[in-house]
Amino acid sequence: MSHLKDNSMSSIVDRMVEASRQLSFHPKAPENCKIELPSRSNCIEIMHQLRSVFFPGFFQLFEYSQDRIGFHVGAMMDRIAINLQEQVRRGFCFNCANQGNLQSCTLRAEDITRQFLERIPDIMLLLCEDVQAAYEGDPAAKSPAETIFCYPGIFAITNHRVAHELYRLGVPVIPRIIGENAHNVTGIDIHPGAKIGSRFFIDHGTGVVIGETTVIGDRVRLYQGVTLGAKSFPLDENGHPIKGVDRHPVIEDDVVIYAGATILGRITVGAGSVIGGNVWLTRSVPPKSSISQGREP
Amino acid sequence: MSHLKDNSMSSIVDRMVEASRQLSFHPKAPENCKIELPSRSNCIEIMHQLRSVFFPGFFQLFEYSQDRIGFHVGAMMDRIAINLQEQVRRGFCFNCANQGNLQSCTLRAEDITRQFLERIPDIMLLLCEDVQAAYEGDPAAKSPAETIFCYPGIFAITNHRVAHELYRLGVPVIPRIIGENAHNVTGIDIHPGAKIGSRFFIDHGTGVVIGETTVIGDRVRLYQGVTLGAKSFPLDENGHPIKGVDRHPVIEDDVVIYAGATILGRITVGAGSVIGGNVWLTRSVPPKSSISQGREP
Amino acid sequence: MSHLKDNSMSSIVDRMVEASRQLSFHPKAPENCKIELPSRSNCIEIMHQLRSVFFPGFFQLFEYSQDRIGFHVGAMMDRIAINLQEQVRRGFCFNCANQGNLQSCTLRAEDITRQFLERIPDIMLLLCEDVQAAYEGDPAAKSPAETIFCYPGIFAITNHRVAHELYRLGVPVIPRIIGENAHNVTGIDIHPGAKIGSRFFIDHGTGVVIGETTVIGDRVRLYQGVTLGAKSFPLDENGHPIKGVDRHPVIEDDVVIYAGATILGRITVGAGSVIGGNVWLTRSVPPKSSISQGREP
Amino acid sequence: MSHLKDNSMSSIVDRMVEASRQLSFHPKAPENCKIELPSRSNCIEIMHQLRSVFFPGFFQLFEYSQDRIGFHVGAMMDRIAINLQEQVRRGFCFNCANQGNLQSCTLRAEDITRQFLERIPDIMLLLCEDVQAAYEGDPAAKSPAETIFCYPGIFAITNHRVAHELYRLGVPVIPRIIGENAHNVTGIDIHPGAKIGSRFFIDHGTGVVIGETTVIGDRVRLYQGVTLGAKSFPLDENGHPIKGVDRHPVIEDDVVIYAGATILGRITVGAGSVIGGNVWLTRSVPPKSSISQGREP
Amino acid sequence: MSHLKDNSMSSIVDRMVEASRQLSFHPKAPENCKIELPSRSNCIEIMHQLRSVFFPGFFQLFEYSQDRIGFHVGAMMDRIAINLQEQVRRGFCFNCANQGNLQSCTLRAEDITRQFLERIPDIMLLLCEDVQAAYEGDPAAKSPAETIFCYPGIFAITNHRVAHELYRLGVPVIPRIIGENAHNVTGIDIHPGAKIGSRFFIDHGTGVVIGETTVIGDRVRLYQGVTLGAKSFPLDENGHPIKGVDRHPVIEDDVVIYAGATILGRITVGAGSVIGGNVWLTRSVPPKSSISQGREP
Amino acid sequence: MSHLKDNSMSSIVDRMVEASRQLSFHPKAPENCKIELPSRSNCIEIMHQLRSVFFPGFFQLFEYSQDRIGFHVGAMMDRIAINLQEQVRRGFCFNCANQGNLQSCTLRAEDITRQFLERIPDIMLLLCEDVQAAYEGDPAAKSPAETIFCYPGIFAITNHRVAHELYRLGVPVIPRIIGENAHNVTGIDIHPGAKIGSRFFIDHGTGVVIGETTVIGDRVRLYQGVTLGAKSFPLDENGHPIKGVDRHPVIEDDVVIYAGATILGRITVGAGSVIGGNVWLTRSVPPKSSISQGREP
Repeated sequence: MSHLKDNSMSSIVDRMVEASRQLSFHPKAPENCKIELPSRSNCIEIMHQLRSVFFPGFFQLFEYSQDRIGFHVGAMMDRIAINLQEQVRRGFCFNCANQGNLQSCTLRAEDITRQFLERIPDIMLLLCEDVQAAYEGDPAAKSPAETIFCYPGIFAITNHRVAHELYRLGVPVIPRIIGENAHNVTGIDIHPGAKIGSRFFIDHGTGVVIGETTVIGDRVRLYQGVTLGAKSFPLDENGHPIKGVDRHPVIEDDVVIYAGATILGRITVGAGSVIGGNVWLTRSVPPKSSISQGREP
Repeated sequence: MSHLKDNSMSSIVDRMVEASRQLSFHPKAPENCKIELPSRSNCIEIMHQLRSVFFPGFFQLFEYSQDRIGFHVGAMMDRIAINLQEQVRRGFCFNCANQGNLQSCTLRAEDITRQFLERIPDIMLLLCEDVQAAYEGDPAAKSPAETIFCYPGIFAITNHRVAHELYRLGVPVIPRIIGENAHNVTGIDIHPGAKIGSRFFIDHGTGVVIGETTVIGDRVRLYQGVTLGAKSFPLDENGHPIKGVDRHPVIEDDVVIYAGATILGRITVGAGSVIGGNVWLTRSVPPKSSISQGREP
Repeated sequence: MSHLKDNSMSSIVDRMVEASRQLSFHPKAPENCKIELPSRSNCIEIMHQLRSVFFPGFFQLFEYSQDRIGFHVGAMMDRIAINLQEQVRRGFCFNCANQGNLQSCTLRAEDITRQFLERIPDIMLLLCEDVQAAYEGDPAAKSPAETIFCYPGIFAITNHRVAHELYRLGVPVIPRIIGENAHNVTGIDIHPGAKIGSRFFIDHGTGVVIGETTVIGDRVRLYQGVTLGAKSFPLDENGHPIKGVDRHPVIEDDVVIYAGATILGRITVGAGSVIGGNVWLTRSVPPKSSISQGREP
Repeated sequence: MSHLKDNSMSSIVDRMVEASRQLSFHPKAPENCKIELPSRSNCIEIMHQLRSVFFPGFFQLFEYSQDRIGFHVGAMMDRIAINLQEQVRRGFCFNCANQGNLQSCTLRAEDITRQFLERIPDIMLLLCEDVQAAYEGDPAAKSPAETIFCYPGIFAITNHRVAHELYRLGVPVIPRIIGENAHNVTGIDIHPGAKIGSRFFIDHGTGVVIGETTVIGDRVRLYQGVTLGAKSFPLDENGHPIKGVDRHPVIEDDVVIYAGATILGRITVGAGSVIGGNVWLTRSVPPKSSISQGREP
Repeated sequence: MSHLKDNSMSSIVDRMVEASRQLSFHPKAPENCKIELPSRSNCIEIMHQLRSVFFPGFFQLFEYSQDRIGFHVGAMMDRIAINLQEQVRRGFCFNCANQGNLQSCTLRAEDITRQFLERIPDIMLLLCEDVQAAYEGDPAAKSPAETIFCYPGIFAITNHRVAHELYRLGVPVIPRIIGENAHNVTGIDIHPGAKIGSRFFIDHGTGVVIGETTVIGDRVRLYQGVTLGAKSFPLDENGHPIKGVDRHPVIEDDVVIYAGATILGRITVGAGSVIGGNVWLTRSVPPKSSISQGREP
Repeated sequence: MSHLKDNSMSSIVDRMVEASRQLSFHPKAPENCKIELPSRSNCIEIMHQLRSVFFPGFFQLFEYSQDRIGFHVGAMMDRIAINLQEQVRRGFCFNCANQGNLQSCTLRAEDITRQFLERIPDIMLLLCEDVQAAYEGDPAAKSPAETIFCYPGIFAITNHRVAHELYRLGVPVIPRIIGENAHNVTGIDIHPGAKIGSRFFIDHGTGVVIGETTVIGDRVRLYQGVTLGAKSFPLDENGHPIKGVDRHPVIEDDVVIYAGATILGRITVGAGSVIGGNVWLTRSVPPKSSISQGREP
């Protein structure tokens, strides 16, 4: 670059610094508080560590004997606690608007991390049932272990069950990072706000979208390309969508939704219904409905 | 985390260890045999090494002179042989159910690896034809080299041709890991069991799903979002899908299937047919059919 | 592998070297010129570095004080300049067909890199508007910062605005690598040739395909699974698609296109139109049209 | 390890935990303060960053143009400031004995770091003179640049000039870590407390030891294996050496000390003296003395 | 390198392969056994892991609370056990001369590893006393913690106490690798065979050499450059030194040996003696001797 | 660092940039030529690669079968050739003083690299003899393999034989980097200019210094702390040492020099002599002399 005139570079940098000063996006720290943004790679590392304790023996090499597994789980949980507390604290920084201070954010992060850790054994049991559902729901699955090891649906629901718990505890931005990690890896986009029952299975999964206020019952099965979305957004006086309104479907227990189906709005799909591939559905259907393309009720 | 009561952590770990003991997912080792699970990162590394010898000069830096390329290919093949044999052996561990032992698994892995290595030159020639098909099939492609370097369809078919060979040789789980790697990277989900002919091309590719028992002829072209899936699964007496039944389509030579088309069940799409975008097809069609949305025969 | 007969391996390697000699894919260097292929990981690193200066404080750790940010932006820009010039030069190698030489490729790379660097402040301002559009367009977005940090649509348009600038400057292959990186990460496949106006937003995004000759106006919003594609390709005398023809849609200002819509061919979607989910559209529609499934004009 | 009885391991771990509880070595944190130990690898990284700004262009790749070097130096200095402040704060933790608290340690670390940064330009000029002395003092040196790049003596004095500045500012343990890093790399062991004048040169250097209270003038030259040590330590009532007493030699300006010489105790070597190889010296000598083996005055 | 004639490179490689065939150095594997050499980097990693459990809190980041430290120590010990057993097994390969087989080497490695692990708590207590001796023996030491963190003498004796235990258990080559690691880092060269009592301290240390058959009592202190060596080697009929003869000094309790002293041959330095700097000693001296340069008895 | 006044940092950086402009150390590039400094880490990597081919099977994992070793050696040699040529070229940059240009430096680097590669088989044979000498010379050595694996003397002579070859070929600075690498690792400081015969062995080695114009015959053995140095330097009119004069000893065949001996000046130690520990020798001695402390002739 020896021929790029140096004052040219200086002038470019000046224009960039000028532009960055005008951005109103970056969180502003209150007095005496340094903003530290969450680290996406650390969040992904935490998910990797959680996977290793949810499914012992599958994701990190350790000897699997009855006595020593406790050492490894305990040591990993301690690392998870330290790492997660730090990211949760930074999550609070991210949304900071002068209401907080470093001290109080640290205490909230500590408290929330503790609550999350106590939920881990229950999350673990939920995931075991998801694995069983994946094995039973896919004729190509050779063993439950294979679904833990390879199935994008299991990867995505693992991230979601963690992200949802943090979302429920009021942690900003971190749940979204965890959800987007699954989206990147699997093409399955589940908003952390979505409530999902037990024994949930998504097969193949690419293109699945599940919106923030979706509610899904037990034993539900989805295929690739299914959208559980919003039909329209009420706009505020400025023409911007109003945030926080229930606007996604309620899917009751034992529903199956085949590939490419699009279900929009705060409608209810009754228990035991089967929604066919590529169906476009914007009205509620009663339990045990069977809907296929061209036959929306 | 100094305020998290220590006995609280101990009690969480105890519940987790207890839960992990109840899991029936983890492979159980027979007497005198240590289970070592396959490593996904090593499988992905093996695919990277295979890419470097399939397309010499594209994926690792080496001098490309007529004499010295043999050194690099030979050295890489030796590394591939060592790495792959280890993963194949671990694949056998993964499905272990007391039928085997370490000695016999090692010998089987060695034997299968040798058979696989001897297939490599043929896989290489097949991939060359796939590259040619990609270049000829996409008006945006500037050179065959560009398709090797950037096209997700070439990435996915490379993984598939390797995974299918290992599937054919009876290797457990490893083919699935290789297939899911392509799924993660490209959004193209091809089951390792699918039989795919020569000069195959998938453009864009996100959302493509090709099921386990699919059979595809020569010179077939697919676009993003195409599903070659199962229509329904025969259930066993417990209501679970029966595994291993032919349940996906047969696509004959010279078929083109446009974006978003869904083709389900053990039907046949006759040679030379064109299936339009978003078509929903569940019956066989004769050769040279032209099917577009709203016109299923 | 001690039992694999050594001459067996030698013979496999010989067959592979033989095959690789027959490949016509690899760029051939002119006399006195060593071909060095672009490095995909370096291109991805350059995008990461560009993100860090486009959105200061979000993607790399540095203190965000008014005075010192200039040091960091300047140092990063210098690294970007060096790295990008090298990859651009290699891009020219990639398409080399004896017309060039090392000296002239280096000079062209230097010249193009300089032109690109001068465009960076403008790209930065465009991206700021895209962020604003994402925040305003998604009721689930809590802050503009969150969209920078987590939204696949922002990731994809950032890559695209860089790739398009390089495409416009005539750089071979590098733009495509940058576009495919976004495709891998987000499932959004935008060809670097597509012209896209300001305040562009893609929500969810998996499965979106935007073709090479697409033209998109200002304030356009897309959802997952939207295809802006070519309907058919004029073939040359050998039956191969003719390259470089305008074949993708023109989307005018203020259009919204919902999930799964497929818009094909060099048609125009008039300003302010709304295209419903899963719509299949192959004819132009006038401004302010509202198209939903089953109602193509 | 499947045959190691698990309770055997548990019992070993119990004994280890028990032992670690009895150690009185580990710093104890005051109430409400978490001890974080310094990181040796971070201290070494800081030295590497300092080298890159002391000798621009030698230790990290950047373009060396008059305008842009300021960006790189500034960005690196900002990184150094952040990293060093953190390690200095941890240094205070290391010696913590309930006198401090997190808040006050952070403020002290910030204050000391600022003072250190302001000393950097002067350290830089001192090092330039050391380089000149090395080039002029060694007939084998081909250029001053070579001594920066390869000479252990330059490496050691660079670490020392930094360590001494931090020692002077009262930073605990970090100076020692920096000194030991040079000791590990070069075999030259200079205590951070030693006061060393300008244009100092150590040739070869392995085995050189320079004690805590040593004072060295300008233009002094040492060879390998020279010891500037303490002769004996006054003991306290418990028979332990009393800490902090002046007990090492004073070496005046323009002295040369050849390989293997041992100079012990608070003696003075007068200006311009030459001490021969392997000399054993425990009494002061006047200026311009020439001492060789067997001729101690 | 395009101008290096390719057959020139081939011919060089042929000569190298030819040469390597004539080497008799490489261990030869018995039938059905693959030689795997020890990994020096893994041995160094094991030492790093051992340091982290010998001195909890100093060498790896973990929370230092009474309850959770057991998790970390236990998990680390399990990793150490796995890694060490593998290296010990490879150590046996290294000296293999057809007497063994894979099965028996694995069992021996397992047995020896178990014995070593049970010795760890005792090694830990010994090292605590060495730390205390270092703190008390050096007026410049500010705290025992500082000696753990920075003192080369503590680094070297830690490696030695581990290496000696493995040497005692008959492990080939691994002890030597561990000893040489300390030699590289500190310049202190202690042969793993040397027997060293409690509360041992080496100050500065560069150039210290302690031979294989040396015996050192309790509370001994050495300074830099001390050699405890062999005076001469009895030769066999071929003029080669006979291996395995006691040929290094015996140093009794409470001896201090100052810098640069050389003590050679199977002589005894009586308890409580002080050996001055640079002394050359080849005869035994009675307890409480005080020897200084020029006054060998 | 939020309290460090920003203009304070700016002013520090300004002073540093100012200082760096005054340095005359940095190589100045001629017109149209970019200076790229050698990379020490790349030089060390090249030594590691050379070790792997000098001692096949010891330093990198590969299968050791008669047929496949050629692949690995050939591939590694190709990498060595590419890496070394680049560093040699940069070495020429380092000493650049407007006499050269990029083109000619590249050609010289290519030529020298080729000459070096052709010397490799001979270096390999020399090293095999050094290994044999180490095994025979040390009663503690259990096998020749152990000396390759662990002995600092073998490490140092390996670096030296490579560095000397490059020195002989006129390569600037790179030989010195390679020599200093051995110095850092082993404490043995051999100037690349020293001429050393076959079957050379240094035991322990810390503190050994061998000067630039030293000449050593065959079958010479040295111990730790031996100096083969210059006695005094003739000064030029400015009082600086004159460079390039023969000023170090000539050691003839079959000499043994024990620990700590210092031999200075252009003197000759006659064949078959034995020089005792700590001897100080500044006059030539005839063949078969036996010199011990206090008995210099």
